Amino acid sequence: MEVPIIDEDHAERVLSELEDYQISHGSLLKVPRGLVDFESPTALARPVGVSIVPTIFPQPQFEQAQYIQRLFNELYIKVSEDDAWLETITRPLARVDEFVAKLWSIWERVRDEGEVQKLRCGIFRSDYMLHCSDLRNLDRGATSDEDIRKDLIGSKLKQVEFNTYSCAGGSHATMVANMHRYLAQKGTHEATNLPANNALRSIVEVLAKAHHAYVPTSGTRKRAILMTVQPNNVNICDERPIEYALSECDPPIILYRVEFSDEVMQSCSLGPDRELLFRPPSRSQPLEISVVYQRAGYDSHEYDEQGVGARLMLEKSRAIKCPTILSHIAGLKKVQQELTRPGALERFLDPEGASILRPTFAPQFPVDESEDGRNALRIASDREAAENYVLKPSLEGGGHNIFGRDIPDFLEAIPPQEKNKYILMEKIRPPMSHGILVSPMMIFQGPVISELGILGACIWRRDGQNAEIITNSRGGWTFKTKPHDVEEMSVVKGYGCFDCPSLF
Amino acid sequence: MEVPIIDEDHAERVLSELEDYQISHGSLLKVPRGLVDFESPTALARPVGVSIVPTIFPQPQFEQAQYIQRLFNELYIKVSEDDAWLETITRPLARVDEFVAKLWSIWERVRDEGEVQKLRCGIFRSDYMLHCSDLRNLDRGATSDEDIRKDLIGSKLKQVEFNTYSCAGGSHATMVANMHRYLAQKGTHEATNLPANNALRSIVEVLAKAHHAYVPTSGTRKRAILMTVQPNNVNICDERPIEYALSECDPPIILYRVEFSDEVMQSCSLGPDRELLFRPPSRSQPLEISVVYQRAGYDSHEYDEQGVGARLMLEKSRAIKCPTILSHIAGLKKVQQELTRPGALERFLDPEGASILRPTFAPQFPVDESEDGRNALRIASDREAAENYVLKPSLEGGGHNIFGRDIPDFLEAIPPQEKNKYILMEKIRPPMSHGILVSPMMIFQGPVISELGILGACIWRRDGQNAEIITNSRGGWTFKTKPHDVEEMSVVKGYGCFDCPSLF
Repeated sequence: MEVPIIDEDHAERVLSELEDYQISHGSLLKVPRGLVDFESPTALARPVGVSIVPTIFPQPQFEQAQYIQRLFNELYIKVSEDDAWLETITRPLARVDEFVAKLWSIWERVRDEGEVQKLRCGIFRSDYMLHCSDLRNLDRGATSDEDIRKDLIGSKLKQVEFNTYSCAGGSHATMVANMHRYLAQKGTHEATNLPANNALRSIVEVLAKAHHAYVPTSGTRKRAILMTVQPNNVNICDERPIEYALSECDPPIILYRVEFSDEVMQSCSLGPDRELLFRPPSRSQPLEISVVYQRAGYDSHEYDEQGVGARLMLEKSRAIKCPTILSHIAGLKKVQQELTRPGALERFLDPEGASILRPTFAPQFPVDESEDGRNALRIASDREAAENYVLKPSLEGGGHNIFGRDIPDFLEAIPPQEKNKYILMEKIRPPMSHGILVSPMMIFQGPVISELGILGACIWRRDGQNAEIITNSRGGWTFKTKPHDVEEMSVVKGYGCFDCPSLF
Repeated sequence: MEVPIIDEDHAERVLSELEDYQISHGSLLKVPRGLVDFESPTALARPVGVSIVPTIFPQPQFEQAQYIQRLFNELYIKVSEDDAWLETITRPLARVDEFVAKLWSIWERVRDEGEVQKLRCGIFRSDYMLHCSDLRNLDRGATSDEDIRKDLIGSKLKQVEFNTYSCAGGSHATMVANMHRYLAQKGTHEATNLPANNALRSIVEVLAKAHHAYVPTSGTRKRAILMTVQPNNVNICDERPIEYALSECDPPIILYRVEFSDEVMQSCSLGPDRELLFRPPSRSQPLEISVVYQRAGYDSHEYDEQGVGARLMLEKSRAIKCPTILSHIAGLKKVQQELTRPGALERFLDPEGASILRPTFAPQFPVDESEDGRNALRIASDREAAENYVLKPSLEGGGHNIFGRDIPDFLEAIPPQEKNKYILMEKIRPPMSHGILVSPMMIFQGPVISELGILGACIWRRDGQNAEIITNSRGGWTFKTKPHDVEEMSVVKGYGCFDCPSLF
């Protein structure tokens, strides 16, 4: 392992440069009142976890991930509109997964009533890790900087997941990229090849474009964007900058936050032409919502009776959804796994496109009664064999995975039919690099693992079961790094840290 | 008293709009580690005190304050270079005030060695309150909104003090002005006539201009601006935005912070041509400092032997000082009081200029053996008469004042010669308005008092004892509001709140 890049004497000064930058730029997590022993009528905030020094990442793989993003956007746009295909996946899953059943039934009701809005907006994020089958691994002891770079450059880009719903991190990633570029300029660290990041701008631009594409039912009402949010949100510094940047557009676009689902029910209603009417607490006249930007409604617990009702109202409305219920469903892990089946990609892309994307897929299998499924079950029931796998529920997002040797006992303990909820994915074995991280939890210096996310920003129109693509753009990136021995990349919990790749 | 503008139900939502804006934009105070019971390797931050709704302020007086700023700049530029006149004030004061003696002796040594830099930069702030001799006062019970407006519009603009050194608040004021304009746009409050604020930009522009005006001794060294700061600063959100904005200039200008006086002594030295050389911890090559921007060195306790040595080195150097030791001395309360003497203004301004500024002066007197001084002592020794006065030490800044009935006992308790340190100023009697404030200390709703500060940004060249003015501009404003019954406007202590005038 190479020497650390900063010495102890220097550390305090570097930390104060970092934390002052973060405090001044809102690179923070809100601390809910009551968490700390501190009497104050106002909230507190603390810097979000960040790398102290940018972590190295190979430029070819970084560029590859950028390059293929528009193809992934296209794939998921087409998957989103192919509800016949989605139904073949969702129907069996819905029998064992109540959440999936609820989402699908919302779609069915929307479909049966007939959609009044065919335009869709999507903000996607494709997450990758590097995978290396032959590691000169840090685990195996001291490794030179040269060996680390060899491992990284020789590794393959593998997709962890493709997120279609409530993709977070764009604002934080933009701020941390700017911070590291600033610190480099000031000589605080020596990283030189730091890519710019337009993540926040691309999110704002696609929402603004969708807002302007919305055709109102009457010319008299003021229009606004609605962002659904979870109550007691600590991650406001990722969401709010989008709102503020929209207000600086010319002409300004106002975005209102509503908590899902209480406030949605209290403040929203459908007009005679299914326009989504929103009454802000401070205004007497309702506004007409142009775009519903979803930053809540991804956890199953949010879908009680009221939650289903709220989601249904939003989906049925004339507002452009970012994303629709179908795009939401397209982000299920089960869909990702189905796309790895031979021939599946070719349903949506030409052979060349399919051949570009397929190498980024990690092997993954259903856990069901099919032949593949029975093979997967055999692996998953064997402690040794399971070591190299991760079991993932079909939910959106991370944080519910079961890893390696824990899989057999876990599968043993659940009812047999529940198994079908899961997919079994070969573990990505990322080469480690050296990192220096600080979060509210820790100061860490040692072997780390990074995850690269590439954002996509799209607008399209449904046409039958096809899609007419209007905007398909790459939208910046997120880059997160964690200590090598932590399974979760959670930034809110203080393990994962926003980072900027130092490309080589 | 008029009804509050927000009702209780609405308050929580408005507070969350405010605090999210503040957290996202760095409108914060840093919470030093150890102050709160919260284990974390990183600092915390909390929103700085702000008005929840903009406080009303009369437009004519706001415009008058803007209008006269360039004249005040000119006055203090000329005072700064008239060291013969300053000496007549400083000499007697230095006998009883050790701090003044130290500052003046620094000037004498700089003068005797000969200055190598004749360019000066000044960032000033002239502070005002409204004064009303006949108040339909909130103290006297319920007052209608109409009466409040009458009191405000009928009042006179009176200068509290003119600050020449380390003028703070420009960044906070800019953020809070932007915040209230944003909240108005969103309909969170109904204030409509909210002035824009270019305070931060004007500070950055004058520093950038001074940086480019600096003629280096050699073309090879990199140049940077140096900002002196106090250790363990909680107010980084007022200072750091200047640094970040300078880095976004084209070409970028790098600003380094050094703590006064330890780090100044460790990292700075004078080159053969008295160029100020600075070695950042992270670079091996020293930089040549173009501008020394003082945000420390205003408290007497900072001037131990090392503090005097550090200040002397900075003053002797070729760097452009913002401000010089002479401008620093020009900001003494004693100078402000001397300028109110008949004929004093005419030494520096033409009769028309003098007649424009004089009405903003509150009556103020020396406390010494002169006839005026003996009169002042008579007032100050009488509890009844002293009621309408405030006793101010000659120090820069506020926070050491003795008010009204406390004056006689205070003067009784100090050695007779110490009295000469002070000036006696008639209390400004500001009309109150209704305000709603939130700070880490309190949520307050009731009668409030506001203070308006107008920034000035100047560059000039000393020419004998005269000044050749190169840049003389108004530079935005600060506006702070406090509960009417609190003497101090301290934002850091949580009494004063940054605010935006709602002009009428």
